[in-house]
Amino acid sequence: VARPVSGRIDRVSGFPEFLPEERLVEQGIIDQIRAQFELFGFTPIETRAVEPLDQLLRKGETDKEIYTIRRLQAEEAEQGELGLHFDLTVPLARYVAQHQGKLDFPFKRYQIQKSWRGERPQEGRYREFLQADIDVIDQGELALHFDAEMVVVLHQVMEALPFPPVVLRVNNRKIFDGFAQGMGRSEVDEVIRTLDKLDKIGPDGVAGALTGLGVGAAELERWMALALIESPDDSFRRDVKALGVEHPLLDEGLDELAFVMRAVSHLPPGRVLASLGIARGFDYYTGTVFEGQMEGHESLGSVCSGGRYDDLVGGEGGHRLPGVGASIGVTRILVRLLNRGELPVAAKTPTVVVVALPSEEERAGAEAVARSLRARGIATEVFHEPARYGKQIRYASRKGIPYVWFPATGGEGHSVRDIRSGDQLTADPGSWGPPVP
Amino acid sequence: VARPVSGRIDRVSGFPEFLPEERLVEQGIIDQIRAQFELFGFTPIETRAVEPLDQLLRKGETDKEIYTIRRLQAEEAEQGELGLHFDLTVPLARYVAQHQGKLDFPFKRYQIQKSWRGERPQEGRYREFLQADIDVIDQGELALHFDAEMVVVLHQVMEALPFPPVVLRVNNRKIFDGFAQGMGRSEVDEVIRTLDKLDKIGPDGVAGALTGLGVGAAELERWMALALIESPDDSFRRDVKALGVEHPLLDEGLDELAFVMRAVSHLPPGRVLASLGIARGFDYYTGTVFEGQMEGHESLGSVCSGGRYDDLVGGEGGHRLPGVGASIGVTRILVRLLNRGELPVAAKTPTVVVVALPSEEERAGAEAVARSLRARGIATEVFHEPARYGKQIRYASRKGIPYVWFPATGGEGHSVRDIRSGDQLTADPGSWGPPVP
Repeated sequence: VARPVSGRIDRVSGFPEFLPEERLVEQGIIDQIRAQFELFGFTPIETRAVEPLDQLLRKGETDKEIYTIRRLQAEEAEQGELGLHFDLTVPLARYVAQHQGKLDFPFKRYQIQKSWRGERPQEGRYREFLQADIDVIDQGELALHFDAEMVVVLHQVMEALPFPPVVLRVNNRKIFDGFAQGMGRSEVDEVIRTLDKLDKIGPDGVAGALTGLGVGAAELERWMALALIESPDDSFRRDVKALGVEHPLLDEGLDELAFVMRAVSHLPPGRVLASLGIARGFDYYTGTVFEGQMEGHESLGSVCSGGRYDDLVGGEGGHRLPGVGASIGVTRILVRLLNRGELPVAAKTPTVVVVALPSEEERAGAEAVARSLRARGIATEVFHEPARYGKQIRYASRKGIPYVWFPATGGEGHSVRDIRSGDQLTADPGSWGPPVP
Repeated sequence: VARPVSGRIDRVSGFPEFLPEERLVEQGIIDQIRAQFELFGFTPIETRAVEPLDQLLRKGETDKEIYTIRRLQAEEAEQGELGLHFDLTVPLARYVAQHQGKLDFPFKRYQIQKSWRGERPQEGRYREFLQADIDVIDQGELALHFDAEMVVVLHQVMEALPFPPVVLRVNNRKIFDGFAQGMGRSEVDEVIRTLDKLDKIGPDGVAGALTGLGVGAAELERWMALALIESPDDSFRRDVKALGVEHPLLDEGLDELAFVMRAVSHLPPGRVLASLGIARGFDYYTGTVFEGQMEGHESLGSVCSGGRYDDLVGGEGGHRLPGVGASIGVTRILVRLLNRGELPVAAKTPTVVVVALPSEEERAGAEAVARSLRARGIATEVFHEPARYGKQIRYASRKGIPYVWFPATGGEGHSVRDIRSGDQLTADPGSWGPPVP
């Protein structure tokens, strides 16, 4: 029963809110994400909404987007200034640094929480948004196993949800670095950021921009050829090798990507692709990178993404803390699909049964029926006042509650009506349950 | 396996955070609260973290506690100033006013969300805290049914949780108002706020304070007698009547309280008391009021409370919107019980099985075992690298994971070890499950 939802609340621009029937959908989706994360052994944490402003500002580029908080009646500078977190990675880094001695490594955590960014609201970008993140952090070295696991978990989550299919594209930043070094180029960041625009400005646009960076014709041809390689398995290796560039770091990147692709070979064809143009250029990744697009919603950009980073904490304390993580943009996906009527929205309440209240005298009996149903896990309301049955049935109908229970009166036994079909059957409050379809 | 948890994180004072094993406990508790709320037909909503500052300031007393937010790089006054909500009632009022035409009444909602207050942190009071709220709002009139339901739901929730017993005390503000008017007193707010201090300053303190307000000896005696009446059923009515004060509003309050007490008569004795001294003096209640204390933790004050209010929105639009609500102080309870070692804290992960990885060659087989277990809902990790079994078992042991799976090798079949008992049995990945105790 998909239907478009017209009335999304957005009076404070960029802070989306859902109606009850939409929130029920969102909650179901969060539950499923969580269940999948836990099936893979990720453990939940929740961090406070605020971090010290200096921590938030360590990523220099994002300072415009931070919300600071302050007490309305605060004395000046009563404590270190605080800001709302703008992602779940900065809080994770702080949490891990703070608790390193109490955590067990490799530390696999998930975190499904709101973040806040003061950026200009537009479709797909909100000032308050929910993300679902997983990361694995280890001390010293982190096994490549987890890079592959990230991709598998993302696939499993997306597959479990009532979303259009998601195609995951995987690459490895070492391939870019090794490819560049193999051609004698030492600086690769600008090239990567340019290649990252392939989706937006097309091959000609990228070629022009690379030429503008001083990339010569022969090198340009190889970069463009590399960026267009895509394969559903580890055959990308042959195509890269055919470009004639050699470097140990390139081989390392190819090996790592091949490891990941072999680990996903059991997944349905076409859902995970090795895609040598994927760069995640503005993120801080050092190895595996990946991103997912939703079929029919490519204009949204990535709906999930992630990758490997060398050190979560960056030099604090003795241990290097390498990690790999993935993030799902829950709000971005849900607002789009709800607004387009592409997610089934059904009842306005979790209630399964309304027990009708024929008269004030029968209240205790109606409540006893409800207790009996609730004891078996059936969400039940007693109608709040004696009223004509028509009114009580209309209440259930308006909220999308499927069953109305009529308590035993006089000579008649209990009965329950499926108000969708109109069928009414006698029923025992101690054993009845909604028929399993 | 209760054990004290020493390392709670609290480096930003007033913003408590949990270790993974504590968060698992919190998450389980939130799930149970939610399940109970849904069993009674409450529907989830979630509101944005911010509200316009002028909305937050409508309750004049709380202005000192509000956190305002602003973009770090904002132009001055780029939009209406925003603050973080300090409870879940102001957001509910705004949400209902905004969506009145799209909601179905009586509107039964629950909301389990963080709130923020800039108050001085101390035990039981935090700057960021989680509350679990239910409210029922109707248009015009709200049935007394829901006042009783609030008390029943609070009892059911508390009973379902691994907490010490909670005693709920119920009263009705109309009894105070009617009692005052029956003695010719028109102004009752100061008296109520004074009676509200009974717990803190004792009967002598209250008597002294009331005398200070100009309450005469005969009236004082009656107020003190009223405030000390407590009964497990509707027998309070007789005790109040014996005080010889008469007023129609007093009778209305007594009738309403009797209705609530009859509706809870099926609950275990002693868990709900009519308690004529309960005032909730600083809240905006107009009828039923209630609060819960946890046995052995009376010093925490109320762990849950609520009551009825005449109008949620206060004159906006045509309809009066009476409501009744209840709130559970989740953070207040959890921090106390975790810090005192009174909540069982067990594993550090949801993982049930670690599949051991004997060698790189057997990785695909180990992953296949894991997929098979996960397909039946068993949370499973594959150990991330080939290593001696001792190391892999220690990993499981450290995280509190109960089972280690040894994949079939050579002539030997699969087997699974319960690392708590040391028992190891052959097992089939397609059918094995952890034994149900």
